[in-house]
Amino acid sequence: MAALKGVNLGNWLVLEKWMHKDLFMGTSAEDETELCIQLGEERFSRLKEHRDTYITKADFVYLSERGFNAVRIPVPHFIFDDCMPYVGCIEYLDKAFAWAKETGLKILIDLHTVRDSQNGFDNGGICGVCKWHLKEENLIHTRQVLIKLAQRYKGHPALYGLQFVNEPIRPDMFEAMEKAGRYPPHDPKRAEGSCGVPDDVLIQFYKDCYHDLRPILGEYVPLVFHDGFRLMLWKNVFPKEEYKNLVLDAHLYVAFGAFEKGPAAFKKVLDTSLVDFASGIREMKTHYPVIIGEWCFAYPDQGFDELDSPLAKEAAMRASAASQLYVFEQADGWFFWSYKLMDGPLGWDMRKALPMGWMPERLNV
Amino acid sequence: MAALKGVNLGNWLVLEKWMHKDLFMGTSAEDETELCIQLGEERFSRLKEHRDTYITKADFVYLSERGFNAVRIPVPHFIFDDCMPYVGCIEYLDKAFAWAKETGLKILIDLHTVRDSQNGFDNGGICGVCKWHLKEENLIHTRQVLIKLAQRYKGHPALYGLQFVNEPIRPDMFEAMEKAGRYPPHDPKRAEGSCGVPDDVLIQFYKDCYHDLRPILGEYVPLVFHDGFRLMLWKNVFPKEEYKNLVLDAHLYVAFGAFEKGPAAFKKVLDTSLVDFASGIREMKTHYPVIIGEWCFAYPDQGFDELDSPLAKEAAMRASAASQLYVFEQADGWFFWSYKLMDGPLGWDMRKALPMGWMPERLNV
Repeated sequence: MAALKGVNLGNWLVLEKWMHKDLFMGTSAEDETELCIQLGEERFSRLKEHRDTYITKADFVYLSERGFNAVRIPVPHFIFDDCMPYVGCIEYLDKAFAWAKETGLKILIDLHTVRDSQNGFDNGGICGVCKWHLKEENLIHTRQVLIKLAQRYKGHPALYGLQFVNEPIRPDMFEAMEKAGRYPPHDPKRAEGSCGVPDDVLIQFYKDCYHDLRPILGEYVPLVFHDGFRLMLWKNVFPKEEYKNLVLDAHLYVAFGAFEKGPAAFKKVLDTSLVDFASGIREMKTHYPVIIGEWCFAYPDQGFDELDSPLAKEAAMRASAASQLYVFEQADGWFFWSYKLMDGPLGWDMRKALPMGWMPERLNV
Repeated sequence: MAALKGVNLGNWLVLEKWMHKDLFMGTSAEDETELCIQLGEERFSRLKEHRDTYITKADFVYLSERGFNAVRIPVPHFIFDDCMPYVGCIEYLDKAFAWAKETGLKILIDLHTVRDSQNGFDNGGICGVCKWHLKEENLIHTRQVLIKLAQRYKGHPALYGLQFVNEPIRPDMFEAMEKAGRYPPHDPKRAEGSCGVPDDVLIQFYKDCYHDLRPILGEYVPLVFHDGFRLMLWKNVFPKEEYKNLVLDAHLYVAFGAFEKGPAAFKKVLDTSLVDFASGIREMKTHYPVIIGEWCFAYPDQGFDELDSPLAKEAAMRASAASQLYVFEQADGWFFWSYKLMDGPLGWDMRKALPMGWMPERLNV
């Protein structure tokens, strides 16, 4: 039984344009870095308005009432307001901790962006750039941010754990993405030399983080590392005796990669959960506690065809939700991506999906 | 897109003890025949009370409001009250037609039992007996009942169609069932010589029914034949040019046959829908319109194990419902078994399953 049943508070403290287009209005920016550059002084008011309203205590109450017991909160590397052109936001994380305490939710702090980006995704804060790991000072800065977060929230009753860095990309995956022209950089010069994060760099970074943070947080607070899209790499990397309470995070999406239509797409989506995801989770659980830090209901865009009735499409979404939920309940925790969207498909949006009946009405059955 | 989205009004005019144990109280009867024998005179009052209250107009309103557009109504061979020890019930079918007309539902009349039984199931009215097809007079009686039903409801705006006979059992299936001691007869002497219904007898009977009923009902009213648990037999038996508007009914249950536990059971249930059921429907649709006259959400009893959390079990039921719904939407109609139970598992009970969220809240999306 999954101990953590949660959602990501995506697009609150780390912006993603596809989730909320209006926030980027009046600019040509595709990522938060460019947005802040183009907005200039206006960035302060626009971000304040957004952060004040997008997530409030009412959302924690809403989640708690429905049986969710945790949130994963993506935070940016500039959360402590220490570099241009960004706008810090630590006061919002403080608020979240207060609300979580009041409503009985636990928080997984997820460092979602780092200097010069670890993946080049829009959600890494700067499209097409992936040079974090190429500068020692970036790695050191990231560790410092994590240490400050640990020091600030250690002992807080709402703290579940701290995640080192979100989705550091695999080298071949970055290369393929670049080749496909996905996430083109605003400033190609700045992107020059970008490449994925090698295994050895990532392993060493995680080790450093563990040794930084374990003494601060004590052994009972989970530390979480993302698999970097290379799940099987981690099998024997961090022996349990040496690395206490170290949790593996895998992001398992059915939304990518299936290109069939109709019943074949339907079957592929279910098989992806029931075979691929289930076996991956089962295998890695012999090495670490495993959480699914991100997942969603969404089908690949190509998944439906004209043969599917509206009711069949509805059934397909429900089956996607149910089969994943079934499998992820066998992990140690799961966090849906994402709690709230202003734009984007229903299958990514828990607030809209719940009234559709795609999840059990109460999770604490 | 399935044109008919319906439920069976099971256990209303044809009794099944597992669905309503109290109705058999004070007797040792396992089927309706023995119940009527043991109750003697009391059978009139007990059946009247049951039939008056089990299904009422409120149920038709309820279904209609939720987007169901059809009901399949199992009726017994003695519906016209013509043989001992049974109690006729044609006035209730009349009521159902009136309620259906008022609420916009369509009715598929399903002759669920016949003299000396076509399957030996409890729902055939007399456990362990399967001798219908051994007497020509039984076949003739069945045709007469069908003719009377056709004459009574022809032209009624709520009539969808008429089904010849429910679940005439396959010879090897009856043999296996008898060997396993399932549905032991109350009167072993009466059961002597029971055997399944051979292909040729069934084909001829269906042909006779078609030729009896088509002139009465006209070519626009569907006539429905059950596959007799031998789906592929029917491929070229009734050519479309000669047999107009003849509809094939298959009963597709995931509840039987899977004996794995946990995730393997879950996968098998989904694969059964998505592979076996889907391919059967696809193939037979090239020959006939196809309806799924019975199905349910229920997992095999053996399906869950101690590793499944309550939420995982909930997800499993939802996935079963959704994957079947998805597949059956590709048939021409479906009828869930059953609308209402007083006993028995939730996965068979639409009235209890709807508040669980196992089906979309409204079917006419």
